[in-house]
Amino acid sequence: MKIVITGGGGFLGQRVAKELLRRGQVAGVNGSTPQPVNELVLVDIAQPPHALADPRVRYAIGDASDPRLIAEAFGDDTDGVFHLAAVVSSAAEADFDLGLRVNVDGTRALLEACRRLGRRPRFVFTSSVAVFGQPLPEIVTDATTPQPQNSYGIQKLIGELLVGDYTRKGFLDGRAVRLPTVSIRPGKPNAAASSFASGILREPLNGVEAVCPVESETELWLISPRLAVENLLHAFEVPSEKIGPVRSLSLPGITASVREMVAALERAAGAKTATRIRWQPDPKIKAIVQTWPARFDTARADALGFPRDEGGFDRIIADYLREEGVTI
Amino acid sequence: MKIVITGGGGFLGQRVAKELLRRGQVAGVNGSTPQPVNELVLVDIAQPPHALADPRVRYAIGDASDPRLIAEAFGDDTDGVFHLAAVVSSAAEADFDLGLRVNVDGTRALLEACRRLGRRPRFVFTSSVAVFGQPLPEIVTDATTPQPQNSYGIQKLIGELLVGDYTRKGFLDGRAVRLPTVSIRPGKPNAAASSFASGILREPLNGVEAVCPVESETELWLISPRLAVENLLHAFEVPSEKIGPVRSLSLPGITASVREMVAALERAAGAKTATRIRWQPDPKIKAIVQTWPARFDTARADALGFPRDEGGFDRIIADYLREEGVTI
Repeated sequence: MKIVITGGGGFLGQRVAKELLRRGQVAGVNGSTPQPVNELVLVDIAQPPHALADPRVRYAIGDASDPRLIAEAFGDDTDGVFHLAAVVSSAAEADFDLGLRVNVDGTRALLEACRRLGRRPRFVFTSSVAVFGQPLPEIVTDATTPQPQNSYGIQKLIGELLVGDYTRKGFLDGRAVRLPTVSIRPGKPNAAASSFASGILREPLNGVEAVCPVESETELWLISPRLAVENLLHAFEVPSEKIGPVRSLSLPGITASVREMVAALERAAGAKTATRIRWQPDPKIKAIVQTWPARFDTARADALGFPRDEGGFDRIIADYLREEGVTI
Repeated sequence: MKIVITGGGGFLGQRVAKELLRRGQVAGVNGSTPQPVNELVLVDIAQPPHALADPRVRYAIGDASDPRLIAEAFGDDTDGVFHLAAVVSSAAEADFDLGLRVNVDGTRALLEACRRLGRRPRFVFTSSVAVFGQPLPEIVTDATTPQPQNSYGIQKLIGELLVGDYTRKGFLDGRAVRLPTVSIRPGKPNAAASSFASGILREPLNGVEAVCPVESETELWLISPRLAVENLLHAFEVPSEKIGPVRSLSLPGITASVREMVAALERAAGAKTATRIRWQPDPKIKAIVQTWPARFDTARADALGFPRDEGGFDRIIADYLREEGVTI
């Protein structure tokens, strides 16, 4: 099986690739006999610093919305795609045209490339809780109307609609999954409005000061990196027929307030660690984050067997320390 | 005031233009003092057979998704746009690429042209009940999730999302209104799956045979041409602030089954007229029409003063006979 990962040089893309390589196989079409992972093509704007050294891995470096790069990456034998490349929330808000170009036109270019293969490849599209906006019910369900109020959410929802229609037309086998905010991301802050959700834990754990741009009462809908990867792979493997005609769904996550996250940080690393957080509200970030829902009933994903983080933020922090080799 | 109408040579476009000329003025920004209609630019693929002869009217003939034609039509002084041009439902289903090009790329080209004006023009986008799909509640409300299951509905919903975001960014002042099926359209059948909703009345009234591709129990959500035009003009005039952040809404209509429509036809023109309908189910058309809702609660539109057909289908048939000069 040949699988293409856009954003394959990024944090999630690298972890999805590693997990595919570790497992060595993925379920066949409609849950049939697992097939070996023979080739992974990782498409990204730049080679990552610690490129995966595995004979099954090839990097395709360039703009993921460039049809020539896509054609070269796909060849004529691609069986599946993880589309992770995106201009994230604050960046899409700051540069409207860039967001449209990458998040809408780039997704369309990929869908067209899949269609041209003529073999109905599987296509996992990473959408986001940002497709939801005010007004929202207390708990977002599978029936809640996505009514995004920021460019990123709108562009992701357009992607979902296209994935649904390309699937309905039989051009590909799409699955659009709405990722909760991933925390704790290792590495550096990025241009996502939710970047602080990792930074306020990661930076203090690494002995560095962090800025928290929202109030401590702010609640978030979160998923750990490990579960994000497990969910993306499950999205790829779940039989198409089980998903049914509606190809978008919200993934399971956990609800935590910033205060609860900081309390877990103190339990793991002591009260002094949390004093490295500087509380400095940022109206622009608050305006985006406040429109996102924090409480979900993910009945559809649960019924389809998507896994959920167990053990709350204490477990997530412990995982981060172990995986990143950080000692307190 | 200078107003551009795409699809301006079509049935609705011509009627919107005529009504604007008849009134001679439209409400200013945010419901302020009415302004005279100085110039109407009607953009369409071909000159209509009975072009409007009025010194205020100019035709711009060509592809409404061609940026050069749009730039020429807009100039630098356009105050408002009615975007009616579209590839309709069955046509968008039959030619996926054409639908995307006209309904998505064409709408985007217009939104970009509005943005470049730098004067925040008003933009009325004609969306459709086709944005809704199964599963649906008994009655569609303003809170119902649009979940389109045909390419036309998906492309219209993408248009709505873009209109919403361009409005939120302050690039223009958009209003996306979901038109019920318009009946009775004069003229010839078109490639809309709903074309029969006019044809089964119009053709028999004109002494011609018509085909009904759906069962007589099929219910539709309908609006007369006169009310469609009144609603589009109201959408243009309603103060922006009253609409609020959500720029899409469903317009008021009436619910009627095909059986009820045919009964009204018999009351108006005698039982013999209805024998000109040939009942010949078409699975393709049924598959599209059956996903559309027929019962709505349009509380938001009602509160914003959008008018509704009074007098049911008897009135609509009487209007058609008078307006088209048909004698039984």
